[in-house]
Amino acid sequence: MRTISVVPGDGIGPEVIEPALELLAFLGLDVKLDVLDHVNAETYVSTGRALTEADLDRVRGSAATLLGAVGDPRLGDTPYVREVLTTLRVELDLYANYRPIRLWHDKLSPLRDKTKRGIDCVIVRENTEGLYSGAGGNLSAGSSQEVAFDLDVSSYRGVSRILDFAFSVARTSVCVVDKANAVRHGGTLWQRCWREAVERHPHIDTTHLYVDTAAMRLVTDPTAFDVIVTNNSNGDILSDLTAGLAGGLGVAASANLNAATGQGLFEPVHGSAPDIAGTGVANPFAAVLSVALLVEHLGHAREAEAVRAAVAAAIEHDRVTPDLGGSLSTRQAGAAVLAELR
Amino acid sequence: MRTISVVPGDGIGPEVIEPALELLAFLGLDVKLDVLDHVNAETYVSTGRALTEADLDRVRGSAATLLGAVGDPRLGDTPYVREVLTTLRVELDLYANYRPIRLWHDKLSPLRDKTKRGIDCVIVRENTEGLYSGAGGNLSAGSSQEVAFDLDVSSYRGVSRILDFAFSVARTSVCVVDKANAVRHGGTLWQRCWREAVERHPHIDTTHLYVDTAAMRLVTDPTAFDVIVTNNSNGDILSDLTAGLAGGLGVAASANLNAATGQGLFEPVHGSAPDIAGTGVANPFAAVLSVALLVEHLGHAREAEAVRAAVAAAIEHDRVTPDLGGSLSTRQAGAAVLAELR
Ligand SMILES: CC(C)[C@H](C(=O)O)[C@@H](O)C(=O)O
Ligand SMILES: CC(C)[C@H](C(=O)O)[C@@H](O)C(=O)O
Repeated sequence: MRTISVVPGDGIGPEVIEPALELLAFLGLDVKLDVLDHVNAETYVSTGRALTEADLDRVRGSAATLLGAVGDPRLGDTPYVREVLTTLRVELDLYANYRPIRLWHDKLSPLRDKTKRGIDCVIVRENTEGLYSGAGGNLSAGSSQEVAFDLDVSSYRGVSRILDFAFSVARTSVCVVDKANAVRHGGTLWQRCWREAVERHPHIDTTHLYVDTAAMRLVTDPTAFDVIVTNNSNGDILSDLTAGLAGGLGVAASANLNAATGQGLFEPVHGSAPDIAGTGVANPFAAVLSVALLVEHLGHAREAEAVRAAVAAAIEHDRVTPDLGGSLSTRQAGAAVLAELR
Repeated sequence: MRTISVVPGDGIGPEVIEPALELLAFLGLDVKLDVLDHVNAETYVSTGRALTEADLDRVRGSAATLLGAVGDPRLGDTPYVREVLTTLRVELDLYANYRPIRLWHDKLSPLRDKTKRGIDCVIVRENTEGLYSGAGGNLSAGSSQEVAFDLDVSSYRGVSRILDFAFSVARTSVCVVDKANAVRHGGTLWQRCWREAVERHPHIDTTHLYVDTAAMRLVTDPTAFDVIVTNNSNGDILSDLTAGLAGGLGVAASANLNAATGQGLFEPVHGSAPDIAGTGVANPFAAVLSVALLVEHLGHAREAEAVRAAVAAAIEHDRVTPDLGGSLSTRQAGAAVLAELR
C-alpha cells in the first residue's frame, strides 16, 4: 500500500484539502494517508521552523504529496513561504512544475472571440533554479545606500532537463520562452540548451518567444500554444496569467515532479488566500484537480479522467463557488463533484 | 528652437517613424530634427558598434528623442539590442519607463465582459536596474557544467525614485508589484521603499500585489488599475500583457524619462518586427502616440490630446492597418490620422 503525505498548510489550504481528501477516499485506491498538519504558519511562529528534517523524511518516503497552501499575512516579511515551498521543491529535486490549463467550460473564458477561447495548454516551469535561488544579499541594509541583489541562476543540467521534460509531455509543439535579448547570461544558456534539445526531440515542433511577447500572445490567442517552457519566475507569471484565461486560480492545479525519481508534489496554484480564509467559500476544484494529477501520476489515468469530467460537469451545471459565479460553499462544491462522479 | 533627435533604427522602425515625423511636422511646433539614421544593425554589423559617444552626445544635447525600434534577427545572439536600448536608458539615466495603456475603442478589447473593457492605466517600469543590469557571467561556458547567472539589482535610490515617480503621475492609486515572497533580497528593499514612499504621498491610495497575481488580475479586470509600478523585468512583461488587452503593440506608446533632468526618449513598445518589416503594413499609431507623449513632454498638452483624439477617430472609422482588422498600409494609416487632425 502506497503512502500519500498531505500538507494542508494555512488559510484556505486545509479548507480545500478536506473535500480533496473525501474525493480521494471515494476513488477507493489502495493508498494510505500521512497527514502533516503541523507544517504551517502556527508552527513557524512558535518554533521558528515549519518544516523539519523529520517532516522532509516523511514526505520523501511517500509515493506522492498533496499540499493545500502555505502563507500567512502575519509572516509577510519572513522567509516562511519560501522556506516551506522552495525547500520541498529543492530538497525533493522536483524540478518540473507542470501546470496544465484547460478551459473547462466556454462560459469561464474572459475572452470575447469564440475562436480564441478553447485553451488547452501546459506551462512547464523550471522549479529549482532561476530567481528563486535564494542567493543574494542586501548591501548597507536599512541605509540610504542600500543595494539589494538576487541571483538568477541557470545550470546546463537544470535547463536541459526541464526542456527535455517539456518535449516529453508535448503533444504537438514546445514554445521556449526566455528574455535572451536582455538577460544575456542565462539567455545564452537557454538558447544553447534549446538548440541541443531540439536535436534530441526531432518530432516535436518548436518555437521561441521573448517573455513579454509570450504574455501578449497568451492574452490575444491562448489557443496557439501546446506546451510553454520557461524559467522559474517567468513560469510563475505566465501560469497565473494563463489561469486567468480559463476560470482563474479556483481551477488551476499543478504538479511538482522529478521525472527521474518519480517523486511528485501536487498542489492547487492558488495560495492561502487570507482574504477569504474562514468564510467557507474557497473553490475546492483546484485541489480536486490536483488530486486528479496525483492519481494519474500513481498510474490511475481512468480515475483522473473521471474526476476531470466530474469537475467539468459540476461547472456545466453551475454547481460552483462564488469565484465561478455560483453560490455554493467549499463543501457543497466538493459534494457536487462527488455527486457527478457517482 | 529645440532639437529632437530621431533614431529610426531597424525593421519597421524607419517605416513607422516616417508618418510619425510627418505628423510632428504638421503640428508646426518650433523644433528642429537631428536624425541619427546610422544607429542601426547595419552599422553594428560593419563596425561592431551601433551607438558611439558622439551619438550619445547628440542625443544628450537634444530636448527629446524619438526612437523607432532596434533589433535584427541576424544579430539574435549578440548584445546589439541591449547595447543600444540599455545604453540609451542608462547613460541618459532615463529611470522611468512610462507606459500608458488606454482602450482607444471598445472594439479593440479582447475581453468579453463589457464592464471590464474600459482600461486606462499606466505601467511605470523601473528602467535602469533589475535583471537588465548586465552583471553576471557564464561559468564553464559551453561545457556540460555551465552555470549562468544574472544579477537582479535594486538600489534604495533607484526604487525610491521610481516609486516617487509613480505616485507623482497617479490620479487615484498606485499598485506596487513585486515578488517579495520569493525573491527576498530585492523584495525586502522594495517593501521598505514602498512603506517610506507611502509616507511621502499620503493622498494617493496604494495597494500591493505579487507579480503573478497582478498578471492574473490584469487579465480578469484591467479596469481595477490606475498606476502599476514595478521593476524592469516585471514591467516588461506586464506592459506587453496590458497592451494585449487594448489593441496590442500597434497602439502602445512609451516614454523613458528622467524627472529630475527632464530628459526623455519616446518610442513605440513594439520592436523591429522582422516578420512584417518591408511589407508596408506596420501600424504607425504606436509611433504617432509616442509623438503625442513627446510633444506633451515639451509642454504642448493640447497638441498631444488632439493627436490622441485623431488616432481614436481613425480607429472609430476603421482607417487602420491589418493588426487592428483594417486593410490600410502604414502610410495610409498615418495619412488617416492627419486627415482626422485637419
Ligand atoms: C527589446 C527589449 C530588450 C526591450 C526590453 O525588454 O526592455 C523591449 O522588450 C521593451 O520592452 O522595450
Ligand atoms: C507563494 C509563491 C512563493 C509561489 C511561487 O512563486 O512559486 C506561488 O506563487 C506559486 O506559483 O506556487
